[in-house]
Parts: sequence; structure tokens; C-alpha cells
Amino acid sequence: MDEHVSRISKAIKPLDRKAMEAARVRQDSLTKPQGSLGRLEELAIKIASIRGKMPPVLEHKAIITMAADHGVVAEGVSAYPKEVTKQMVYNFLRGGAAINVLARCIGARVVVVDMGVASGFEPHPDLVCRAVGLGTRNMSKGPAMTRQQAMQAVTAGIEIVEAEVARGLDIVGTGDMGIGNTTASAAICAAITGEPVEHIAGRGTGIDKAQLAHKGEIIRQALAVNQADPKDPLDVLAKVGGFEIGGLVGVMLGAAAHRIPVVLDGFNSGSAALIAAGLSPGMKDYFIAAHNSAERGHRRMLKHLGLTPLLDLKMRLGEGTGAALGIFLAEAAVKLLNEMATFDEAGVSKKG
Amino acid sequence: MDEHVSRISKAIKPLDRKAMEAARVRQDSLTKPQGSLGRLEELAIKIASIRGKMPPVLEHKAIITMAADHGVVAEGVSAYPKEVTKQMVYNFLRGGAAINVLARCIGARVVVVDMGVASGFEPHPDLVCRAVGLGTRNMSKGPAMTRQQAMQAVTAGIEIVEAEVARGLDIVGTGDMGIGNTTASAAICAAITGEPVEHIAGRGTGIDKAQLAHKGEIIRQALAVNQADPKDPLDVLAKVGGFEIGGLVGVMLGAAAHRIPVVLDGFNSGSAALIAAGLSPGMKDYFIAAHNSAERGHRRMLKHLGLTPLLDLKMRLGEGTGAALGIFLAEAAVKLLNEMATFDEAGVSKKG
Repeated sequence: MDEHVSRISKAIKPLDRKAMEAARVRQDSLTKPQGSLGRLEELAIKIASIRGKMPPVLEHKAIITMAADHGVVAEGVSAYPKEVTKQMVYNFLRGGAAINVLARCIGARVVVVDMGVASGFEPHPDLVCRAVGLGTRNMSKGPAMTRQQAMQAVTAGIEIVEAEVARGLDIVGTGDMGIGNTTASAAICAAITGEPVEHIAGRGTGIDKAQLAHKGEIIRQALAVNQADPKDPLDVLAKVGGFEIGGLVGVMLGAAAHRIPVVLDGFNSGSAALIAAGLSPGMKDYFIAAHNSAERGHRRMLKHLGLTPLLDLKMRLGEGTGAALGIFLAEAAVKLLNEMATFDEAGVSKKG
Repeated sequence: MDEHVSRISKAIKPLDRKAMEAARVRQDSLTKPQGSLGRLEELAIKIASIRGKMPPVLEHKAIITMAADHGVVAEGVSAYPKEVTKQMVYNFLRGGAAINVLARCIGARVVVVDMGVASGFEPHPDLVCRAVGLGTRNMSKGPAMTRQQAMQAVTAGIEIVEAEVARGLDIVGTGDMGIGNTTASAAICAAITGEPVEHIAGRGTGIDKAQLAHKGEIIRQALAVNQADPKDPLDVLAKVGGFEIGGLVGVMLGAAAHRIPVVLDGFNSGSAALIAAGLSPGMKDYFIAAHNSAERGHRRMLKHLGLTPLLDLKMRLGEGTGAALGIFLAEAAVKLLNEMATFDEAGVSKKG
């Protein structure tokens, strides 16, 4: 493994048991029947133990939305033309996409990253350019990228999140944009979990039944041609992944190394999470699964990661939209933990 | 039926089909695959059709949290002493309860109402006093209140929400506080749906198995003694209800009459919703079920109302806490509908 990736993977520390215990004690002293805030109680305790401090603070929030193109789109796996990746990046930069609206709702900044969109961009003050190439190669004919490029994508993600940490970051959501990327993510999921492709490949942006069957065929072909080694997550990323997926792997590792909770969006964030968790066993503890995506196969990813999603709103847009809602719940959970009065403070009688 | 209640029930109009259609057309023009925002898409369309305008605006938000005591607590149905109702009202007024924290998270005001807490309150600038009595009578021995009192409670709720409309109100969440009120709500649910008590009675604030069996017995006794008429919702409210439940019925009817979406909290809001829906057949369209409460029986209520909850976080606190999270989702859904760019505006290619 590349030195930078190896170093950051080792920098991920276990959860802080002391902060966890302090959060649990406080949780049970607050003016509510124990456990009555349900999953928000566990969530706040988890965040305290990730942050390693009590009370935990979630002031600075960011969604990092990474975009790239996919050579496999040439095989007709998507309902939308590949130009949409670039057009949507401009939409992000103008603030007109769903992720912009939801980020405003939760008071988070959106960090828009070009990890490798076809035809590239003119310099733009709000666009982070870390393109590894002008889209991946067609994975149904050979590797999507070289191992060197996979490493470069992960390293870029680490550096991007570290730049955000320098600006102030307490929680991060992951987001993606890339026509064709559910094809790559399904291939990653099949390669790593061993689950049959037909249980994982989904309708992405909205293909029909016949197109879905074709997409499954292309994924199987990509897996057969490339023979990625499931024990080597960077090999899987290189052979059937994408530049934005690699970037998100780096974001996840870098955030965890800085004790920052990683709020996972849907299917494409899930495939990045599978790779990040493969690179660093401690990674899983830093994930918060925002929602259950309507994209088939997402449940299988979450099962592999041992995560239970907070929401199930039949969303399947990506961009970080589910993650934004998850960050709202995380912030609400933490504020409840920090701001509610205790039984003693409020002079409320305890359970009889 | 009392004239005021009858008038307001008739004032509830059907959903606005024109606004619904306009919202649907816009929803499908926004820069996302159709349907990819899942339930947030339906939610925004529903709100437009409730408000009767496009674009709908959700600027002014309130949670109305109503408190009262229950005579049936004398039978030992709760884990907490009855004094907690009053103590928690003071906690609400000081801003230390869970509902205060969540209301701050979503930018909503909390309207705290005394509908009949035992021993009453000194005047307080932030407490709305509409007490119908100093707690209900013990429903296991006879009616919890008179029909006149039930009417008074509903009327108070209507007037309270109308006062909030005068201050500016675009969406309202319902909340409750009342030691013993899950016993009343379970009785209401059993009376109206006909479902056996053992499927409905739950652990409330946290009673054990033996106490739960006893609570079930008391509910069955209350139903046998009172023989409430399931076809007469005010009779059910009077015989096995509570003052805060009656107040919430009025809030629901009054809000719907002013085309304001009613975001339902959990089990006690659910019992009020059963009564409100019984009083006015058009009422159901104005409900948004925020969450699935962990209190047994809540699902049965939602089934009767034909509602699918947005969240399932194992919460069972009441106060309006689930409703607050639901209001956040409603506002997010509406902002997505209103603020996202269309394909044309953003110059994004449509589905191929």
C-alpha cells in the first residue's frame, strides 16, 4: 500500500471509551425516561466517543461531493448521457442542486470536487480540482484505472478533507456525482461481499428492466475480465471503481484519522466505505449510515459494514442528500445530550 | 356536537388539486431523476395541496405542547409519580426539555399549554392557561370527564391554534405531557379501532411486564365501566380521554380549517388524531405522521388513519419531539421543491 494511505489508515484510533461512558452517564441523567429518545441517544453517545470529548461539539459541517466520469457509460448502463456529470457540477457551483438546498437547511458547506470529469473544467473559485484523469476507462474491457491512479484518488481525498479540517470541521457527509457510478459501485460491492450481481445492481438514475439486465451483464463482464482481489481493496478500486469513489475513500480515512464522524450517503458512498473499511479495520466505528437508499444492493453494503441506517425515505439521488439529513439528526442528537436539563437541575422526580 | 366544534369541522376543505398538480409538475422538472428524492417528493406535494398554494411557504413553525393530569394514575399505571407532569411543564418553560432543544434546532416556537394539571400554576408569561380542571377523574371508576368538559377542551385547542395563526403559523406539531396519558390513549385506540387492549397498551414511560399487565386490566375495566360509543368521538374523549388529548383534537381541527399541515407526534397525538378524524372526515388529509413511536399500539393508530410515518427512530418520549423532526423533513422537502433548479434553468440534459 502507498505510504500516505498506509500512514493515515494506521492513524485511525479506537473509539474513546471514557467519552462514551461520560456521555452514557449524562444521557441517563436527562429529564426523560431512559431510552425514550431511542436511536438519537445511541447516536449522541457514538459521536462523543468518535470525537473523544464530552460534551461533543458539532459546529462546523461539510458535505464533500466528488464528481467523476466512467468509461463504462459507453456500454449504455445509464438513463442519462455522460454530459450530465459536468452539467450537474455547474449546478452544484450555482447552488441549484438538491444537495445545495439541503446543505443550506442544515448550515453545512458543500465542497465540490472534480476528481475526473470528462473534458475537465475552467478554473472556478469554488471548485476543487483534483482530477486524476478525464474519466475512467471502460471497466468491461479492462481495469478502470491503474493502481497508481487509485492511490492518487485516495490521497487526493485525504488531502481535501485535511484542508477542510484546517478550515474547521466537526462532522462530514459524503456525496457523489458521476453518470455510470452505480455500475462501478455494484461491481465493488459484488467483488468485496461476494454477493451475486443480480442482488446488487439497481436502476440507478432510472433505467428500465431490460436496461437493468444489460447493466448486470456488463458488471459481470467487468468482474470476469478484471478478477479483482477482494483481499486487496485498492485492487478492487482500481479495476472496477471510479475516481470519485477513490476520492471518497480518502475523505473517509482522513476524517476518521482526525476523529471526525463520517455520515454516509447512499450506494456510491457505500462502495467507498467498503473499500475504506477494508483498508483500515478501525474505520467502521467512524461511520454513521444516514439512510437506506432505494438503490438495490445498498442494504447489502450496510450489512457488510454492520451499520443500521437512520432514515428510510426511498431516496436514491446521491450528491450527499441523504448524508445531509443524517447530519441534521446527528446535530439534534448531540444538542439533546448537551442542552437538556438533568433531573436534578430541573427538580423533576425520578422513576418511582 | 357543540356548535363551535361542528362549525370548525365543517370548515375543513378538501386538498387543493390545482396546487397539487402544479407541485407535481414542478417536482418532475427539477434537476434530479424523477422520484429520486423519494418520500420528500410526495411530502412537498402534499404540503402544497394542504396550503393551497404553489410555491408553499413554511416560515412560521410551532409545536403546541399540552399538559394535563389523569385520575387513573391512582391505579398505579405509570412508572413516574403524577407530580412529574407539573415539574416537566416548568422544565418546558425554562427551555430544558427535549422538545425545547429540538424546537430550537428547527427554528420553531414551543407553545406550552396547561389543559388541566393537578394543583394548577401561578400565572407565567409563557404558559397558556386553559385548564379544564385539576386533572381528569379516574376513568376506571367512571367517565374521565363530562361531555361538557370534553367540548371545552376541544374548543380551547381550536382557540389556541387560532391565536397562533394570528401570530403567523404555516405548520404545526402536536405535543403532550401527562403522567398516565398513554393509559388514556390506549383506551381511546381500543374503543375506536376495536383492537384488543393487549395489542395496544404499552410500557409508556417504562413500566415492567407485571405493571403492563396491570395497566391492561385497568384499561379493560375503564372500557367496561364506561361503554363509550365508538361512533361518537366526543363520547370516547369524555369517558376515557384526557384534557390535553381534547386540547390537541381542537388544535388539529383548527389548524386544518386554516389549511395548516398538522405534524403528528407519537401515541398521545395519535389518540387525539383518531378523535379529530372521527369528528371531521376531511381531517386525515391534513396529517403528516412524523414517526413511528416505540409505544405499542401506535402502528395500529396510524393504520386506522391511513398514514405512513416518516421516521422510525424508536422514540417514545412525546412532548412533540417526533413532530419536531417531522417538521424539519417537511421544511426540507418544501425547500427542495421551491429552490432547486429545473433542467432548463440549469442547462442539464434530460433522460436519454
